[in-house]
Amino acid sequence: MKDTLSLTWENRFASRADHMKSSAIRELLKLAELPDFISFAGGFPAPEFFPAKEIAATIDGICDSQSLQYGPTEGYRPLRELWAQRLGRKVEEVLITTGSQQALDLLGKVLVEPGSTVLVENPTYLAALQAWRVYGAKFHGTELDQDGLQVDKLPDQGQFLYTIPTFQNPSGATLSLERRHALIEWSERNQMPIIEDDPYGALRFDGEALPRLVDLDPHVVHLSTYSKTLAPSLRVGVLVGPAQLICKLVQAKQATDLHTSTLNQRIAFELDSNGYIEKHVQDLRRVYKERRDAMVAAVRKHFPPHTKMIVPQGGMFLWVTMDPDFNSVACLERCVAHKVAYVPGNNFHPYGVDLHTMRLNFSNTQPEMIEEGIRRIAEEL
Amino acid sequence: MKDTLSLTWENRFASRADHMKSSAIRELLKLAELPDFISFAGGFPAPEFFPAKEIAATIDGICDSQSLQYGPTEGYRPLRELWAQRLGRKVEEVLITTGSQQALDLLGKVLVEPGSTVLVENPTYLAALQAWRVYGAKFHGTELDQDGLQVDKLPDQGQFLYTIPTFQNPSGATLSLERRHALIEWSERNQMPIIEDDPYGALRFDGEALPRLVDLDPHVVHLSTYSKTLAPSLRVGVLVGPAQLICKLVQAKQATDLHTSTLNQRIAFELDSNGYIEKHVQDLRRVYKERRDAMVAAVRKHFPPHTKMIVPQGGMFLWVTMDPDFNSVACLERCVAHKVAYVPGNNFHPYGVDLHTMRLNFSNTQPEMIEEGIRRIAEEL
Repeated sequence: MKDTLSLTWENRFASRADHMKSSAIRELLKLAELPDFISFAGGFPAPEFFPAKEIAATIDGICDSQSLQYGPTEGYRPLRELWAQRLGRKVEEVLITTGSQQALDLLGKVLVEPGSTVLVENPTYLAALQAWRVYGAKFHGTELDQDGLQVDKLPDQGQFLYTIPTFQNPSGATLSLERRHALIEWSERNQMPIIEDDPYGALRFDGEALPRLVDLDPHVVHLSTYSKTLAPSLRVGVLVGPAQLICKLVQAKQATDLHTSTLNQRIAFELDSNGYIEKHVQDLRRVYKERRDAMVAAVRKHFPPHTKMIVPQGGMFLWVTMDPDFNSVACLERCVAHKVAYVPGNNFHPYGVDLHTMRLNFSNTQPEMIEEGIRRIAEEL
Repeated sequence: MKDTLSLTWENRFASRADHMKSSAIRELLKLAELPDFISFAGGFPAPEFFPAKEIAATIDGICDSQSLQYGPTEGYRPLRELWAQRLGRKVEEVLITTGSQQALDLLGKVLVEPGSTVLVENPTYLAALQAWRVYGAKFHGTELDQDGLQVDKLPDQGQFLYTIPTFQNPSGATLSLERRHALIEWSERNQMPIIEDDPYGALRFDGEALPRLVDLDPHVVHLSTYSKTLAPSLRVGVLVGPAQLICKLVQAKQATDLHTSTLNQRIAFELDSNGYIEKHVQDLRRVYKERRDAMVAAVRKHFPPHTKMIVPQGGMFLWVTMDPDFNSVACLERCVAHKVAYVPGNNFHPYGVDLHTMRLNFSNTQPEMIEEGIRRIAEEL
């Protein structure tokens, strides 16, 4: 009798559970823990630069009963005020989330009607696709190039547009200033909300900073995070958007996890408001630029001459395009056997086509190992 | 044009957003921050007993790059192993969640088909109702009494049963041993999964500990949390259940918040595995017992003589039943004006009836203030 109950779980799953699948990246990461493995797969910051001492010292000063008690769903008020001030907004327009991934989940919960179409870049961040598929989203992907999303190819129907305009994941492309203006115009013309995901914006190595989409139009819903500038494990993200939307997202968040860890929010607040993060990010830029350069050079040296890549001006990823008949999934299997990994490009496409691209993360591997890793991949091409 | 876009957010919400409403408790808590306010509303631990020093000292020793990097969705492995060992299970049967609230959300995401019926206690934890309404759940509530859920009144159809058998929220009732066995029998007879929420089990003041439902039947899905034994702000919960279910919940969690803060998981692990929490909980039991006694005595002294209450053997809440024509919602408005608050009982009912009950939290108020608060309420009855 008991065994029968145990065996029936699959029959008890709701139909939305059909859309839940384990992320290819997460499964790969399990292999990447083997010794001598070089992984370009995860989107991991450089662990040797985490400000562990600064975080521990900060906690010593703030670990009090307010930091440990239940807190407001909207977030730790001084942290919300900091972001309101930073973006010239009201505090009611700022919500703290449990990492940016939660912002994606909450937006899906509140905005995605089953069967509706979400507009995305093609390729795009795979966990956004995962988050919204669960709520029944269909996707329309619009291609991007060196200058980011091809705005003139966007359709004029959809629930909202999700874009990562700066150092896009996975392509590394950055939306040009001209296209930023064109995108806002398209949004106004079609009354189409834009969700701007900006996890990497602070990590610029080359070129001049461009205005965020939210700087050009306050109706844009802007997502930021401390995962790339401080530490992912804190799970502190920031969503800035119209108060009417925030209000509904807060209701959704109440039922989802009550609130984000106050202790972790206060760590982020202290190290952001005292200027530490700004200084720390300058170090990260230098370190990541060096790693990007090492990877670009290694790909040029070891990959076939007709390999195409977008050289990113910042962020954490290099996007490589091989011959049209190249199969990056099959190649990955060979690579993993030789202790190196990347993410095949098809994972970032809403409908899984495109087998001749790969995403290579450079932030998580020291420069001297980057060339070795690229060499290992090149041997399997 | 821009204003038009701003005004259309409500039209853009998915239909599931209709089920999202701000929790009455959360709104009340905003008032409770006024000076001299005595709040029996929130389910808050006693802040003066948070082990702030011990937590800060623990962090000093564990704030390293592993604690700060992205971690596995399943949770920090040593913490999972600790719970596997504690409950005599395999590590694959343990998932760490971002507080127990996330466990409720994930269970709803994976198990609740729109329109299906979830069996609950009447009254029950209101944020469980909130979490599952979003996924389209209907509810069937079964009454409880001094000995907990009236198992013989349970229906034999439903998606699953959600129960808080020990020091129930809001009623304070504890399911008797006889009924625990009857409940497991009912579950087997009807092939009905049970979700056992156990946030308060460690906080027993009187009587002998009873077996958890999961101790009687490993098919029970068991939820625990560090919110009541350590600190709510850490947002660390534990779900123990069949591996097949865990596997699907992990996929759901990936898309929801990637993983629970590793730093916070390690704090919980260190202070649990070294025996600190067990010792700390003994202090909490003594403190909360004193507060329960103060509240029970004050209600007996100040409330009308025919007031009924369930005297809880542990936990954080006292459930009070007034005359059938009493309106606890109207009374609360008068109470708030006199700087005291509780939660009207209708909030804990799936369909909002029952206006003559109230939930009084005793853990968050010092004994000398408990009598004053109860006296203030009594004046408004």
